[in-house]
Amino acid sequence: MLKLKRVGIDTYGANVAFLARTCELYRPEEFQAFKTINVLDEGHSLLASLMIVDDPAIVAPDELGLSEQAFARLGLEAEHPVRIAPAQPPHSLEYLRKKILGHTLEAPQIAAIIADIASHRYAEMEIAAFLVSCAGFLTTAEMLALTRAMADAGNRLSWRAPIVVDKHCIGGIPGNRTSMLVVPIVAAHGLPIPKSSSRAITSPAGTADTMEVLARVDLSSHEMQKVVDQCGGCLVWGGHVNLSPADDVLISVERPLGIDTREQMVASIMSKKISAGSTHLLIDIPIGPSAKVRSHGDAMRLRKLFEYVGREVGLHVDVITTDGSQPIGRGIGPALEARDVMNVLACAPEAPADLREKSLQLAGALLENDPALQGGSGYARAKQLLESGAALATMNRIIDAQGRQTAAICPGNLTHEITAPRSGRVEAIDCYRINRLARLAGAPMDKGAGVDLLCKVGDPVEAGAPLYRIHACFDSDFGFARAFAQEDSGYRIGGTA
Amino acid sequence: MLKLKRVGIDTYGANVAFLARTCELYRPEEFQAFKTINVLDEGHSLLASLMIVDDPAIVAPDELGLSEQAFARLGLEAEHPVRIAPAQPPHSLEYLRKKILGHTLEAPQIAAIIADIASHRYAEMEIAAFLVSCAGFLTTAEMLALTRAMADAGNRLSWRAPIVVDKHCIGGIPGNRTSMLVVPIVAAHGLPIPKSSSRAITSPAGTADTMEVLARVDLSSHEMQKVVDQCGGCLVWGGHVNLSPADDVLISVERPLGIDTREQMVASIMSKKISAGSTHLLIDIPIGPSAKVRSHGDAMRLRKLFEYVGREVGLHVDVITTDGSQPIGRGIGPALEARDVMNVLACAPEAPADLREKSLQLAGALLENDPALQGGSGYARAKQLLESGAALATMNRIIDAQGRQTAAICPGNLTHEITAPRSGRVEAIDCYRINRLARLAGAPMDKGAGVDLLCKVGDPVEAGAPLYRIHACFDSDFGFARAFAQEDSGYRIGGTA
Repeated sequence: MLKLKRVGIDTYGANVAFLARTCELYRPEEFQAFKTINVLDEGHSLLASLMIVDDPAIVAPDELGLSEQAFARLGLEAEHPVRIAPAQPPHSLEYLRKKILGHTLEAPQIAAIIADIASHRYAEMEIAAFLVSCAGFLTTAEMLALTRAMADAGNRLSWRAPIVVDKHCIGGIPGNRTSMLVVPIVAAHGLPIPKSSSRAITSPAGTADTMEVLARVDLSSHEMQKVVDQCGGCLVWGGHVNLSPADDVLISVERPLGIDTREQMVASIMSKKISAGSTHLLIDIPIGPSAKVRSHGDAMRLRKLFEYVGREVGLHVDVITTDGSQPIGRGIGPALEARDVMNVLACAPEAPADLREKSLQLAGALLENDPALQGGSGYARAKQLLESGAALATMNRIIDAQGRQTAAICPGNLTHEITAPRSGRVEAIDCYRINRLARLAGAPMDKGAGVDLLCKVGDPVEAGAPLYRIHACFDSDFGFARAFAQEDSGYRIGGTA
Repeated sequence: MLKLKRVGIDTYGANVAFLARTCELYRPEEFQAFKTINVLDEGHSLLASLMIVDDPAIVAPDELGLSEQAFARLGLEAEHPVRIAPAQPPHSLEYLRKKILGHTLEAPQIAAIIADIASHRYAEMEIAAFLVSCAGFLTTAEMLALTRAMADAGNRLSWRAPIVVDKHCIGGIPGNRTSMLVVPIVAAHGLPIPKSSSRAITSPAGTADTMEVLARVDLSSHEMQKVVDQCGGCLVWGGHVNLSPADDVLISVERPLGIDTREQMVASIMSKKISAGSTHLLIDIPIGPSAKVRSHGDAMRLRKLFEYVGREVGLHVDVITTDGSQPIGRGIGPALEARDVMNVLACAPEAPADLREKSLQLAGALLENDPALQGGSGYARAKQLLESGAALATMNRIIDAQGRQTAAICPGNLTHEITAPRSGRVEAIDCYRINRLARLAGAPMDKGAGVDLLCKVGDPVEAGAPLYRIHACFDSDFGFARAFAQEDSGYRIGGTA
């Protein structure tokens, strides 16, 4: 038997095993071509990719090393004796191969693949293979099966209320932190809205990252339940309550590969929402030249897929399209976005009007689901709740219930302004570049990093006037972001002021 | 700047960088979601996947570690100062995304992808994505472009002769070591046959592995040229002369994923053959229920693809189909196969008749390309060269010219016989299981490991009589192989003896 060793290497979710080339019990090179081995002990088993080690400081000839996540997943103590064996690949890989060759899969076959992915039995390249074969084509029946399988592979929350509302925005628009306004407005009215959100993967901030500037977000499902009972709503991180974990694994490969198909998007979003236990869901599809959805035709096709899955799984879905031609609000990055949100709630004069208006529309649409409210009065009710300070009071209750952040988190101290090269009018802002810029500046890792937009589309600018300000906390990031902005600011200035 | 460190981890071709979580200059987590970073120095640059390290014995906070292959590829000394930056993904990934979404690619786009793959600028999951999107569909024009791009990405050999012959067998049949007989027969006749072969990836032996039992195979192209000048033929490892290196990268992902489409197979084989500089190529397609090609219809479609590419690139291609219903010869694994080959060349009574007969047919078909030979007399000429001892003499000249193996390599000492569970007749042998069994026994890493077949399809057997013998050199492998054979021997016994 080999002695188990925890190797201090973080492989970002993938299971990796380390074996010395001079291993006394096994011939590591024999396993290498298949890339995967099975680590075994009575009652424990783990599939892991193999790396061969030539440095006894990493693993000795009588040791088997596991990367940090793999070690945690196997659940044994260091020095525990383990065996290894050639991997018996998961049976569901056979279905994956069928899909690769263009076959349509049955629901149980998709469920088997998703169960294996959720249990980390797929290597990264097998996950990539699954995503790409689905991107090639996926029937609506397959998409529905994928949605259900992903929802089934994790926790399922349930709420003791006849109507539980939720909202989701197709991402890609910088700023756009509407959930943090919609939740307190809707909760202030009295409709339950237990919102769980994602952290950013490759974007500069997810709602969970921004909310974390104000409050704790890694609540257990029990704690989440308590906050919702007390405040009517919450803003927590979905990753901690294990909703659709297969989706998290898929996204970790999908994003760096840059695959983003309609069917995968719908399955991903709907699986999370089914798991979250809501009954009425509002989907916001921003349309714009640098948004994820670029035309009304695309938005319509996407809407129909959402409606189809919603009907099949018994979740009421409303889809609205919004302006996605430029960022929403001013700040991009957790601290800057949280500032905008609190300004809107406080009805401060510097609150961004577009963020306020869009949030009122979304909250209004959700409020229409309340049978007690007269049809068409949702928007007015939302506006009243915001202007009266009721929404702000609810937000403060939610923050306190989740655990108020005690230290103030401010925008980063390293700042640099990008200026207009000529006088004129802002004609377009490239959402993709602004997101990437805020990310390079350090968001969301550094809560204070990001971009503060000083003018928006349509605004007149003088040559030399600042277009936006980069905030960073770390020298290397500040350098990356400045270089990126200097190459192309992402702003197009045209016409005359 | 960070100090470069060589980390003693063999990542099997993939570039991996290691950065301490406590790194003083960069925030490793910021790079992690994109998985890839760019390692830079004046004039040097390398894309690598990032792993974050929590153990200062692996990398210190002021160091950047690179896996062994990545370190070699970057080409700098240890402790050399380097910078890192967010990866600028290869431009060709845009074409990959088009292909994933079902577009057809132009030849220059495919060439850009292949050039990046050959230069190790693609991560494993990006390679998987390319393979899967091609498996979905590939037009014949795309297949041709892929073939040309792969051939262009490596070395190209050239020979001063009007006719240079070559052969290739679609793999999957255990034993079947015909190249080692065809080369000496054809070379003895005087037709140049500079054969380069692969090593096994997931099979128990490639021709290069088996030839290595008898002689050195890792010759440079210059050494290869000398052997061919001297003997009229050679049997070397193609990997060392850098023919179609992109193909090697693709295969390293294709095999563990188990993707094996016609178009990829044709592009892979033809790119190697174009690079090898032959003018006349014979392709052997074995057909059988556990072979790669299962029906005559499939073989015909494959043949047409080979012929199409051959015509377009100016390489004369002949395709023959052969019996692929069971292993060819007796031994499976390098030493056992080499024994069979030398027995056939020596016309020994224990030489396997099927291996001899098939090799004569293939050699005969190749000899038909000699204008000096009367049409239809190739087979008789091959037989004459074998029976006269001329082929054996040529093989010995080739072995000496390449560098004769001085130590005798014998079948492994750990042996176990699998016996017939009942009396009857051998009805079928599962090629896939026999290959996997020989691999588990330690082939090709242990040259002496493998399987020695003691009866073949059609042979009568008594209950308890041995069907085959497992040879292993290492206890753990011996255990894996025995367990696998006991689960299912791969032999079907039926009827009466």
